[in-house]
Amino acid sequence: MPRAEVLSIGTELLLGQVLDTNSQFIAIELAQLGIDCFFRTTVGDNKQRIKEALHQAFSRAEIVITTGGLGPTADDLTTECLAEFFGAELKMDEVELARIESFFKTRGYPMPMTNRKQALRPAGADVLPNPKGTAPGLIWRVKEEQLRFAALDSIEQERLVFTFPGVPSELKAMWAETAAPYLRGRYEAKTLWSKELKHYGIGESALAEQFAHLLELSNPTVAPYAGRNECRLRVTAKADTEDAARALAQPIIDEIVRQSGVRCYGFDSDTLESVVGELLAVRNLTIAVAESCTGGLVSKRLTEIAGSSRYVGLNVVAYSNEAKIQFLKVPKPTIEAYGAVSAECVKEMAENIRAIAHADIGLAISGLAGPGGGSDEKPVGLVHMGLAVSDFFAAKTIRLGSTLSRSEIRYRTANEALNMVRIYLLEGHLLRPTVTA
Amino acid sequence: MPRAEVLSIGTELLLGQVLDTNSQFIAIELAQLGIDCFFRTTVGDNKQRIKEALHQAFSRAEIVITTGGLGPTADDLTTECLAEFFGAELKMDEVELARIESFFKTRGYPMPMTNRKQALRPAGADVLPNPKGTAPGLIWRVKEEQLRFAALDSIEQERLVFTFPGVPSELKAMWAETAAPYLRGRYEAKTLWSKELKHYGIGESALAEQFAHLLELSNPTVAPYAGRNECRLRVTAKADTEDAARALAQPIIDEIVRQSGVRCYGFDSDTLESVVGELLAVRNLTIAVAESCTGGLVSKRLTEIAGSSRYVGLNVVAYSNEAKIQFLKVPKPTIEAYGAVSAECVKEMAENIRAIAHADIGLAISGLAGPGGGSDEKPVGLVHMGLAVSDFFAAKTIRLGSTLSRSEIRYRTANEALNMVRIYLLEGHLLRPTVTA
Repeated sequence: MPRAEVLSIGTELLLGQVLDTNSQFIAIELAQLGIDCFFRTTVGDNKQRIKEALHQAFSRAEIVITTGGLGPTADDLTTECLAEFFGAELKMDEVELARIESFFKTRGYPMPMTNRKQALRPAGADVLPNPKGTAPGLIWRVKEEQLRFAALDSIEQERLVFTFPGVPSELKAMWAETAAPYLRGRYEAKTLWSKELKHYGIGESALAEQFAHLLELSNPTVAPYAGRNECRLRVTAKADTEDAARALAQPIIDEIVRQSGVRCYGFDSDTLESVVGELLAVRNLTIAVAESCTGGLVSKRLTEIAGSSRYVGLNVVAYSNEAKIQFLKVPKPTIEAYGAVSAECVKEMAENIRAIAHADIGLAISGLAGPGGGSDEKPVGLVHMGLAVSDFFAAKTIRLGSTLSRSEIRYRTANEALNMVRIYLLEGHLLRPTVTA
Repeated sequence: MPRAEVLSIGTELLLGQVLDTNSQFIAIELAQLGIDCFFRTTVGDNKQRIKEALHQAFSRAEIVITTGGLGPTADDLTTECLAEFFGAELKMDEVELARIESFFKTRGYPMPMTNRKQALRPAGADVLPNPKGTAPGLIWRVKEEQLRFAALDSIEQERLVFTFPGVPSELKAMWAETAAPYLRGRYEAKTLWSKELKHYGIGESALAEQFAHLLELSNPTVAPYAGRNECRLRVTAKADTEDAARALAQPIIDEIVRQSGVRCYGFDSDTLESVVGELLAVRNLTIAVAESCTGGLVSKRLTEIAGSSRYVGLNVVAYSNEAKIQFLKVPKPTIEAYGAVSAECVKEMAENIRAIAHADIGLAISGLAGPGGGSDEKPVGLVHMGLAVSDFFAAKTIRLGSTLSRSEIRYRTANEALNMVRIYLLEGHLLRPTVTA
């Protein structure tokens, strides 16, 4: 298989005015085709530096994919630089010129003269059609004398150029319609199939340690990734067909799932809230949440899932003590004696929201999200949570430390709360001996 | 001024599993400091290729900034590669090791052995402290014999290395606390001072058209940026001192604020919820929210702001009709006659949550977030919202179209609702003639 490099061209990228999402798109697509990409370079709208980057890329890879620099203005230099780099003449493509003119005509504008430039092509290069915009790209299988002109070391290797405009929607359409089928046909690419196993409650290094023997494998490969307050193991297999790749990966996936137990909460696009939602829906159970410090985040996450109205009817954000007393019927003496951030208060909140909302499960959260309001006894990051069902109540206390931001404390608290519900739904009995208040 | 290059390290970036937002952050920051950056490179977790990329970067630039590869696992290679590249010994930093151990201790876990690696530092390099995580970075002014070891061409130029972990929040904190002040002090950079003027309710092209005459300026510069469902104009001035730069920018800022009116909702890190919160706090007003389709998102955003307990006491997510009837006292006949997604229902919800919570302002939202549940009469994306105060009620209906995702419909709905409160607080009278139901 050939190697590819991606060259993102545009000063706006180097200045940070635009986030380069095109590179990610191409990276995912190349990985799917099984084409290795070892370097990615971003360079500004500067001829000398673009040619320097071209030299580098063609010295290391057979396929160079550029994005950006195909527009009509003076600082759009990609085509020109490629022609100069390989010593090829630029020719006007009359067919493309007519297409660009008609593109403007259908929109009711005359074509500005500057757009003529977009129909220029190095001799020998083919058009990579752009169904969505004026700038066509190039597919160019560079000739041997041109490789020699460019002073590349290994001219016996073939070199392919693909150029794309920087507009993501145009690039994606051009990739899907022309570049991807071209590459797939040319290299009879193997299929890569992968699955992510999402873990909660275990760090990246502990996960890597536990599965060290799997990280050594070459096909399928297993790699750990740290996410926001969670970790993933990605299992990737390569084979001639998707089915064959999947069959290679499955035993490894099964082994990880078995060993990780409840710590592996789902796959790919699963989230704690989607998994909790599925468990609730399957069991035909409802939940009601009473939140204080998370301020609605748990409710927001539960209802982010389409169809969550099956298990969510009423949630309450009881931010003030008065709201806790008046609407959640927490006895005033409980708050006076123990404070709102206490296991005692959270127990009342969980049991009462369950009763008020006529839900199967009551979940309550009260804590200190900071940055202010902490004390020695009750520091920022201290959170009590409780889960009430008809016949028992489970409590949990977490201490997240006060270095995290308010937003992060709330996010992790919501994760803990959702995970508490998940564990209860999976194996309710486990909670009782360990964390019941 | 020196040149910098950014090196993003991580196979997950080359595979497209992670979008590289760190590079954009650093690009913006370097531009602010007036430090040129002509190339940016992404490379995977591979020793030889990382060292190749280091050689390239140090051949072209005085400052090399790396992101990623500082984690505890075997494929985190940044520190090791730098040490090998410059022929420096790796030493255990006992102070950092103790800090990392205590980081785990406060979270109640023992430190895995693999994390010891994160306290290793090349001799001569300083710690770039990480206030948010275990992985410290490096600030390293490389010595002449080390430059010679690395076989760099121009060893008379100084070389600086900064390493950051790939976790964006950690990187940003480390940049702001240590790297930015260091660079500013070292290069006595001309000071760039900039302010973002955040706009809601106007698109990027309309904004660019309205202020076309300002976009031509060279100092200060004015540039438009599209954000998520909002736009910003960034005004940047360059001068010897911050005061001088600010003085240059101020007249332009004033002009934009005057011309944009209420469409300019704030500056820099302001959000709709922070601005609403400030307006409520200053006026000593309280708000209570009754949400249906947004499911807690508005409550979550209002309470994301530290100190929001001054104006939030009780919010309710009344997702089911029963919850609306039972808890928010919406008359059953109202829902039967008009449906839960109706101006009539929302009026009851807003007035009743206001009364129930004893708040000054009641805000209510009911709509169809999709993807299912829409009809010809009430399509996905239809949302009713209402704002009730003692003496009047204002309603608003939005139609967001059904092509947006559930998450995006909810996000934009929350924006509209927060903006409705903002406009009311700024100029309550305006609402009455235009949108009162």
